[in-house]
Amino acid sequence: MPYVMITTLIRLENGPTVVGDEASDRDLMAYLGASLVQKTGNPFKEWVVDLPPRVVLNKLEDAGYKVVGTAGIGQTAIWTLHKPKE
Amino acid sequence: MPYVMITTLIRLENGPTVVGDEASDRDLMAYLGASLVQKTGNPFKEWVVDLPPRVVLNKLEDAGYKVVGTAGIGQTAIWTLHKPKE
Amino acid sequence: MPYVMITTLIRLENGPTVVGDEASDRDLMAYLGASLVQKTGNPFKEWVVDLPPRVVLNKLEDAGYKVVGTAGIGQTAIWTLHKPKE
Amino acid sequence: MPYVMITTLIRLENGPTVVGDEASDRDLMAYLGASLVQKTGNPFKEWVVDLPPRVVLNKLEDAGYKVVGTAGIGQTAIWTLHKPKE
Amino acid sequence: MPYVMITTLIRLENGPTVVGDEASDRDLMAYLGASLVQKTGNPFKEWVVDLPPRVVLNKLEDAGYKVVGTAGIGQTAIWTLHKPKE
Repeated sequence: MPYVMITTLIRLENGPTVVGDEASDRDLMAYLGASLVQKTGNPFKEWVVDLPPRVVLNKLEDAGYKVVGTAGIGQTAIWTLHKPKE
Repeated sequence: MPYVMITTLIRLENGPTVVGDEASDRDLMAYLGASLVQKTGNPFKEWVVDLPPRVVLNKLEDAGYKVVGTAGIGQTAIWTLHKPKE
Repeated sequence: MPYVMITTLIRLENGPTVVGDEASDRDLMAYLGASLVQKTGNPFKEWVVDLPPRVVLNKLEDAGYKVVGTAGIGQTAIWTLHKPKE
Repeated sequence: MPYVMITTLIRLENGPTVVGDEASDRDLMAYLGASLVQKTGNPFKEWVVDLPPRVVLNKLEDAGYKVVGTAGIGQTAIWTLHKPKE
Repeated sequence: MPYVMITTLIRLENGPTVVGDEASDRDLMAYLGASLVQKTGNPFKEWVVDLPPRVVLNKLEDAGYKVVGTAGIGQTAIWTLHKPKE
């Protein structure tokens, strides 16, 4: 599962940061300290961690992931990360 | 056909993900499990798959594609991928 | 003229794609099959081709150009390409 | 702490530039001349410097950081920088 | 001063292009043919050139700068360029 995307709303200086979808790697989610939640009205679950995105990127780097793209849609900032296969 | 673009609306944690236009490579579309649909009011067809974009990126990596850019327009997130020619 | 920018509106699955400004290289515009048009109310001309951006990127790759950045402004998606000098 | 994000609002030609969140590296913040402020209504603090982002990027380069992605959300421009671990 | 940012509004096919802030390198601004202007209501000055961004990127490449990121905020397209230190 070499790709990971993380997103945060509006401001980058605080959390929460969304770090995965329902099929995300459980070990990685546990490593990040994320919780699987389903927000009211959403037909899907998501992994969320109460950290700003900068701290999450640092943790993901320690796990071998590298930023390959950044983007914004609406008020959401997105970082796409990739871990080379061994 | 070295370039592929995939897009998803608003949230990254669920599908569908649009993976091609009418001229996209049929073998690649079949590999991704995509369906060719024409939405009401659209003068064009598109290939759609019911997976979140992270899972699609992982499949495309197995097929030799690499993310070369990410962007957002309106509520749409876009990943542009490229496969080097052999 | 090593840089080229192409843009498309709202959806990526159909054309037209804008591929140049009035000073763009004529040989490259001819190679892409583009037409120089001036839209009503615009104080400038632009080169336009009736192809989706993915197909244009594939043609530009054959001409030596490589994507160096993707972005979105409003409803417009932008790809910036570069061709190394010989 | 290899990742840093800086953001600026609307225009790039003047400050302030936000350079960190509450957990950012204090030595780096001091090097940039940043102040830790809490704006009215915000449940978090942020490090701010009264310089345009171009000048901040030049300072961060001198400290070993490199731009790995640029993005925009709403009226906010974002630069994500990374410093390789020694 | 290894970083430069250029921006243009709404459409990429015509100028003006903003190429610097008040502290930008004067020699580079002169090389680009830019003028330092202060628009009504703005508390800052900016360097502006009456060329489309593609032409500016080509000039900046001749001066040793390379695109390291593209982004959009609101109706503004942004190119961040970098020149390696000698």
